[in-house]
Amino acid sequence: MNVGFIGLGTMGRAMAGQLVAAGHRVQVWNRSPEPVKQLVEQGAVAAGSIAEVLGNEVVLSMLADDKAFTTLLLDEQLLAGATAEVHVNMATVSPALAVRAAELHQRHGIGYVAAPVLGRPDVAAAGNLNILAAGPEALVDRVAPLFEAIGRHTYRLGEQPQSANLAKISANFMIFSAVEAFAEAAALAEAGGLAASDLLEVITGTIFPGPVYAGYGGQIAADRYEPAGFRLDLALKDVNLALEAGTDNRVPLPLAGLLRDNLLDNLAHGEGHLDGAALGRTARRRANLDGRQA
Amino acid sequence: MNVGFIGLGTMGRAMAGQLVAAGHRVQVWNRSPEPVKQLVEQGAVAAGSIAEVLGNEVVLSMLADDKAFTTLLLDEQLLAGATAEVHVNMATVSPALAVRAAELHQRHGIGYVAAPVLGRPDVAAAGNLNILAAGPEALVDRVAPLFEAIGRHTYRLGEQPQSANLAKISANFMIFSAVEAFAEAAALAEAGGLAASDLLEVITGTIFPGPVYAGYGGQIAADRYEPAGFRLDLALKDVNLALEAGTDNRVPLPLAGLLRDNLLDNLAHGEGHLDGAALGRTARRRANLDGRQA
Amino acid sequence: MNVGFIGLGTMGRAMAGQLVAAGHRVQVWNRSPEPVKQLVEQGAVAAGSIAEVLGNEVVLSMLADDKAFTTLLLDEQLLAGATAEVHVNMATVSPALAVRAAELHQRHGIGYVAAPVLGRPDVAAAGNLNILAAGPEALVDRVAPLFEAIGRHTYRLGEQPQSANLAKISANFMIFSAVEAFAEAAALAEAGGLAASDLLEVITGTIFPGPVYAGYGGQIAADRYEPAGFRLDLALKDVNLALEAGTDNRVPLPLAGLLRDNLLDNLAHGEGHLDGAALGRTARRRANLDGRQA
Amino acid sequence: MNVGFIGLGTMGRAMAGQLVAAGHRVQVWNRSPEPVKQLVEQGAVAAGSIAEVLGNEVVLSMLADDKAFTTLLLDEQLLAGATAEVHVNMATVSPALAVRAAELHQRHGIGYVAAPVLGRPDVAAAGNLNILAAGPEALVDRVAPLFEAIGRHTYRLGEQPQSANLAKISANFMIFSAVEAFAEAAALAEAGGLAASDLLEVITGTIFPGPVYAGYGGQIAADRYEPAGFRLDLALKDVNLALEAGTDNRVPLPLAGLLRDNLLDNLAHGEGHLDGAALGRTARRRANLDGRQA
Repeated sequence: MNVGFIGLGTMGRAMAGQLVAAGHRVQVWNRSPEPVKQLVEQGAVAAGSIAEVLGNEVVLSMLADDKAFTTLLLDEQLLAGATAEVHVNMATVSPALAVRAAELHQRHGIGYVAAPVLGRPDVAAAGNLNILAAGPEALVDRVAPLFEAIGRHTYRLGEQPQSANLAKISANFMIFSAVEAFAEAAALAEAGGLAASDLLEVITGTIFPGPVYAGYGGQIAADRYEPAGFRLDLALKDVNLALEAGTDNRVPLPLAGLLRDNLLDNLAHGEGHLDGAALGRTARRRANLDGRQA
Repeated sequence: MNVGFIGLGTMGRAMAGQLVAAGHRVQVWNRSPEPVKQLVEQGAVAAGSIAEVLGNEVVLSMLADDKAFTTLLLDEQLLAGATAEVHVNMATVSPALAVRAAELHQRHGIGYVAAPVLGRPDVAAAGNLNILAAGPEALVDRVAPLFEAIGRHTYRLGEQPQSANLAKISANFMIFSAVEAFAEAAALAEAGGLAASDLLEVITGTIFPGPVYAGYGGQIAADRYEPAGFRLDLALKDVNLALEAGTDNRVPLPLAGLLRDNLLDNLAHGEGHLDGAALGRTARRRANLDGRQA
Repeated sequence: MNVGFIGLGTMGRAMAGQLVAAGHRVQVWNRSPEPVKQLVEQGAVAAGSIAEVLGNEVVLSMLADDKAFTTLLLDEQLLAGATAEVHVNMATVSPALAVRAAELHQRHGIGYVAAPVLGRPDVAAAGNLNILAAGPEALVDRVAPLFEAIGRHTYRLGEQPQSANLAKISANFMIFSAVEAFAEAAALAEAGGLAASDLLEVITGTIFPGPVYAGYGGQIAADRYEPAGFRLDLALKDVNLALEAGTDNRVPLPLAGLLRDNLLDNLAHGEGHLDGAALGRTARRRANLDGRQA
Repeated sequence: MNVGFIGLGTMGRAMAGQLVAAGHRVQVWNRSPEPVKQLVEQGAVAAGSIAEVLGNEVVLSMLADDKAFTTLLLDEQLLAGATAEVHVNMATVSPALAVRAAELHQRHGIGYVAAPVLGRPDVAAAGNLNILAAGPEALVDRVAPLFEAIGRHTYRLGEQPQSANLAKISANFMIFSAVEAFAEAAALAEAGGLAASDLLEVITGTIFPGPVYAGYGGQIAADRYEPAGFRLDLALKDVNLALEAGTDNRVPLPLAGLLRDNLLDNLAHGEGHLDGAALGRTARRRANLDGRQA
């Protein structure tokens, strides 16, 4: 398939690489040239402009946020000139943006599929992402071979693109809710004389298997948050997406509000570059664990 | 081993049964006579009084809450007359009570071990509980054969009994935190047009394996909370234990406070008898999901 | 003074009317024609366009929100053609917008003063508003006679325009915090057998004199929220301004987050058109006061 | 009137002094002897025991908390021997305790009135307290002359004693809600470049007259919390009374929960001895205001 790919950040690079490896012709574009060079070395083709990328049958994009997507792609003139059949937006953007984007694409005869992913860059590099896809069924069928190259499983979430975005931001919200729960429990445990690592062993060995508690919890138990797998300032970005979706849909999300406050506490202390697990820092700080005499 | 067992509620009955089945001589006491009769049929011996039970080498107790334990067992005169080597309190009580109980037992020459369990009655009946044990190492060694009969694994959490209680109430707090997170996410999803069951499939298939999300989440997705596996009013009891431990240790637990508010919302609506997953009812109610039908 | 006035909503109309009454030549513009007609009857002059209004020495604007202000006034071409010395933005907008607006005005040689007001339409009609003014001192001096016509007191809050906006959104945040506090206390009182009106009498007669508790509290005690003096959906708008300012300045505002959740609960129940005091509805609903048998 | 008075803390001493000054015969008891000596010098009579005090026609008590009251006065034998007509409990205790106390007193033929007060020691010393009284009307009439000596106004809150306690803990809850609101607003203001003192001037001069905002707000604006007028650890005690009453009546009180978390943050940082206004410390700390200096 002739595929265009826009946005070669850490995630996008890995995903585009998988497409090349699977034998697709992939034309890539990125704001900065370095990642383009890398992909070309792997067999991709460099595009001179976004408009050129939109000349491929299928276009995938993986941009940083709502703003980047809006600025680079939600342009009447640009879309009017595009000949792509379908555009698959794989970034974590707001459901509201998905609605707007789908409408605008439709007006210009381009199909729109939302397909955000679950998984970090190392998972992407191994082609093991989980893909949350939503959009017209025929379009999702059309791009299924690409999803197979990129991910290990595709969850189909109906015909409305924004459903996939809702699922993705809900998942991220739930991840940081779990982190907050362990952060508070660990602070309580330590203040009471129980090592956070002992508590972690109990809960991961019994009620909470899986990567989230073990991974983020391990960082909290060690009180070490570098290198960042998923930066805390991006965690706040995603929690804010959940809160905005809550506002748009008139759904109170008190736990998301709590996450927001605690992540801002982190930011106020210059911890935005740490891993999102550093919610554990806020819980420790509020309980003054570091200031308590041994 | 000559074992005494006090408290034959649903959990206690199953645990005492496992001890009998493992070949121990088990003398049992319960406030109401019916469960005693059942255990005697299985091979246990009925005790005429709690004082009599405290004449066994080892005594296990599984009472409802701090109040029941305090009323029935924290009695100077009773403990002064006891000849038991060690008393293992397997109930979910407060760390503060564990501290007081350990002191009182020590004053009367009786060892005290805290060993609350993770697992519901069906798990207990199969001898598959996870046991969180803390207390003097020699004492925990002494009762290890009993733990083997009752559970599948014992987590040893150090010499201070209250550490086990901290771990247990932290675990329960984390369970209902996970329930709340899914309750909010599910309300957001449904308000936005994504079925809660689709969201549940995504998260349990990817980031959140294990029984908590699948079990409680399944109830929320179906909006059905009966029969109750773990009653909501007991969930509130446990969240309050976490909050009290937070106060005693000067640790803010905003997520526990949020759970408390939402569980009270449930109680105000007569839902205390439902399963704790009914936090999902509060989330639905606040978003007025049932009232949104056209 | 030759004054231009943009935005004749309920507040703007009253304020412009005061300026006319004080003898100023006031040229007015409004999106819809009716209010313009009214002002002209009072002695104002109708403007054919916003550009025309910007030809007066001093221009005051009172637009609905950030979006209206941005759309109508933050236009490079428009400002490049303006000859006004100073523009006084009296609306409740975000501090971030004030920063942007001041920069843009400066680039075109126009002074910018932020001067949001405290007071409802009836207070505005009586010329009794409190004005929160910030901006370069000479400019505030320049427009002081206009403030004297509109308000009873001007609080000068320094040289940075955004300080006035911060003060205004802080004040509104504090108002709804007070409303929430009484809403919760009133629900507790009623559930416990004490009439909310009795509680209100106590607190307004002792610790909380002044219009906020008496006014909003009176509505809550009577559980009547119409007609709306200050609509609940606008209260949410202002709370969101506080939360945004919190994000921009990395300041956790948990009480603002709580207000947001409870106001969304109101909106989900179709209560956005009620007075902001209807936070009392959410508190009653959560405690199920209406569903409790007498 | 022959009056007994139990509990001569700072408040009790001032109140008993007013009764003496008004010409009543006042027999006093206190755990420590020094305040008794002071009162005797003012004209009171020392009692040898609490039982002796309960021989007066009317007995007033002002003890520290639920525990002190329960320990010293809720004693079957003690009350069985008492000849007092009525006991007026003026302390801030829980509504639940009022219910229990009223029942126990009734069983022994003693009337029970709850009459907590609003006002600090200096207000008490001037005889200017506000009294919140509830209990059987005839009994409140009976003690009205004493209230006139102690306070400037008595609010009558019906026949159920616990209503007065509900009003009192609601009032204190509302005070600290107001403190929290200003604490957050002040942190936001300062982070954004507006002095907290300027914000305070605006709100106390306009929407929030009265002693609470001016007094507590003044401390926050100055970031000085000593000497403590009302200690922070006692503020937490009162917030916990509100939360307990919420639990007993199944009323979610999210704002009270928020206060609890923030006051615990203070305690964790060793600030329990500061004035309750030190909620402002928690808000500053979370926003890292002190750490933002260049």
